[in-house]
Amino acid sequence: MNSFRFYNPTQIIFGEGTADTVGQQLASVGAKSVLLIYGGGSIKKSGLYDRVIKQLQEIGAKVVELPGVEPNPRVSTVRKGIELCRSENVDFILAVGGGSVIDAAKAVAVGVPYEGDVWDFLMRKAEIRGALPLGAVLTLSATGSEMNGSAVITDWEHQLKKAFGSIYAYPKFSILDPTLTYTVPADQTVNGAVDMMSHVFEQYFSLTTDTPLQERLCESILQTVIENAELALKEPTNYAARANIMLCGTYALNGGMISVGMQNDWATHMIEHEVSAIYDIAHAAGLAILFPNWMKYVYRERIDRFVQFAVRVWGVDPNGKSDEEIALAGIQATRDYFSRIGAPARLADLGIGAEHLDQMAKETVRFHPVGSFKKLAEQDVRAILEMSL
Amino acid sequence: MNSFRFYNPTQIIFGEGTADTVGQQLASVGAKSVLLIYGGGSIKKSGLYDRVIKQLQEIGAKVVELPGVEPNPRVSTVRKGIELCRSENVDFILAVGGGSVIDAAKAVAVGVPYEGDVWDFLMRKAEIRGALPLGAVLTLSATGSEMNGSAVITDWEHQLKKAFGSIYAYPKFSILDPTLTYTVPADQTVNGAVDMMSHVFEQYFSLTTDTPLQERLCESILQTVIENAELALKEPTNYAARANIMLCGTYALNGGMISVGMQNDWATHMIEHEVSAIYDIAHAAGLAILFPNWMKYVYRERIDRFVQFAVRVWGVDPNGKSDEEIALAGIQATRDYFSRIGAPARLADLGIGAEHLDQMAKETVRFHPVGSFKKLAEQDVRAILEMSL
Repeated sequence: MNSFRFYNPTQIIFGEGTADTVGQQLASVGAKSVLLIYGGGSIKKSGLYDRVIKQLQEIGAKVVELPGVEPNPRVSTVRKGIELCRSENVDFILAVGGGSVIDAAKAVAVGVPYEGDVWDFLMRKAEIRGALPLGAVLTLSATGSEMNGSAVITDWEHQLKKAFGSIYAYPKFSILDPTLTYTVPADQTVNGAVDMMSHVFEQYFSLTTDTPLQERLCESILQTVIENAELALKEPTNYAARANIMLCGTYALNGGMISVGMQNDWATHMIEHEVSAIYDIAHAAGLAILFPNWMKYVYRERIDRFVQFAVRVWGVDPNGKSDEEIALAGIQATRDYFSRIGAPARLADLGIGAEHLDQMAKETVRFHPVGSFKKLAEQDVRAILEMSL
Repeated sequence: MNSFRFYNPTQIIFGEGTADTVGQQLASVGAKSVLLIYGGGSIKKSGLYDRVIKQLQEIGAKVVELPGVEPNPRVSTVRKGIELCRSENVDFILAVGGGSVIDAAKAVAVGVPYEGDVWDFLMRKAEIRGALPLGAVLTLSATGSEMNGSAVITDWEHQLKKAFGSIYAYPKFSILDPTLTYTVPADQTVNGAVDMMSHVFEQYFSLTTDTPLQERLCESILQTVIENAELALKEPTNYAARANIMLCGTYALNGGMISVGMQNDWATHMIEHEVSAIYDIAHAAGLAILFPNWMKYVYRERIDRFVQFAVRVWGVDPNGKSDEEIALAGIQATRDYFSRIGAPARLADLGIGAEHLDQMAKETVRFHPVGSFKKLAEQDVRAILEMSL
């Protein structure tokens, strides 16, 4: 186990009906002028928008709105939000939506007190030194953004998709009401499951040794997602299934709680970012395609971890099998599961061909090789992309 | 899963050598006048006292000392600490020790800004509304006090042992350096393992349904403690074993992270508190004796949880066995494990007879029946104590 620091100051308010406590929560942090950030309007259809606005009115807060945050949130939208905060003297940012909306809210939050352009943070040209406080009402179980300080933002014009992380960007509170996800369509439920499983993969497949607790915490989340995603797809209003998945999504990426002291990988995420910087596909769709191929490409680096994965997570019977066979059975089980819940298996399923593989591979390693489980150079990334066609 | 709130603002600094960052940490929170709280002097023998003092001097902090905190920390000592803080204008409390020292520090911290007597908080006569900030350097893996807001304090004169919990009592930071536990003697290593396992038991054996992730998180800690405690006993300076145990102790009771949305039990702790309020025994020694008997007394309330415990935690082979047999095999495995690592099995091992059973049973339920997995009235508590003789 490596040395580490862990600090996660986000308060989680979880349960049916907690969406109706957002006013109370805002009042308790003294919010007077609130920027309400949301996405494409599903919160209007579901009635959540009205419920939130009512509460904001009841506590007498001024409300400024930034609607229309994109599924891959764009820096142009973030810049609009920063301008609004400044011109309207906003003192608190409330994100109502999924990971994209919360990510955009974080970028606005860190951008407001900064004199330069917010994109500097994404390009590592400036250090984040403060932020407006923010909170979230989560409507989609997936990214874990509700309990961490990270965000992914896209500069669509320049086909760049970059991430930042800061202790200042942790939400003060996040409201997790599983009933808000009853209306999440099947494809987004699938994407959410793939996304949280992928977050765990990035942490679990690690070369760090002597981390038995962390490995088990990772496996716990994977097993629970696997059990509950199919149930949620079959019964979208099954509270237990939705609640279990929501908790898994949050714990999968809450500042690294499940993988403290472990080196993380994140190569697959970086490859996927380059795919979805060119093609406007769902992040998780890309991950579902890439991850089994990444696994196949790297598993020999540490076959014991893949054997453990196969046996503990997928219940592969190790009897009479070589390590190689067990590891490959686990990878195949992952692939089969993704297919079974309806995730895409090949880039071709999304209409993506070989045209831009070189560009994607090159951009992935623009600054340096990616990954730590196996360091991937340009030709490695290209090979994985090719396996994914 | 029940609704819940989770908030844990303690920063963890974990790893070899982190004890030498305490000065830096204190400087970053602006500590100028520090109350240094510690126990019976083991930190002087180990050299840790000198290392800490040196760092306090380097940052130019004034140091006030409160040595001699008891293994079951006493309210009389806490009162001394409160007086010292007031008379010496202390602005930060630093606990260097195990759970008892940190618990005492918390009680001092919440007592300073309160006009009445600190014991009021233990007797639920007053509400905690603030505290001096505190931090900790942990020297013993056991209670989890380093990452939660709870403390147990004893009024020795009146044979009362009571607990409080408050968001104000969370340490600002806790330094977890596994090498500091290399010199922990075998009996205290055993007590630590029993203590953290008991904390998990109190959360895991719950009537709340639909909590598959939480159950697995609990099992993950139990399995990791079981694997690593024997290794640490055999090889006291095995870094991996000490680090794994330390992390387990912290995660076992860090504000309820592993059991969010689950009703907890805590009956066994309450019974034990009454035993150690009369006999000055180690808390964990009492728990090791009581827990297998509590399990035997209550397992039929929800036999499926005990079956799961036996199979997943102890590897009991369920084939050809009834649920009853599987559950009992798990309880026996717990008992055997405690014996194997050297924990006491019977009250008689500690020289405790039947003399005060009535008093202990009566005091345990003074305010109301205890526990939630099975509500225990006075005669239930007495029966468990009798089974433990």
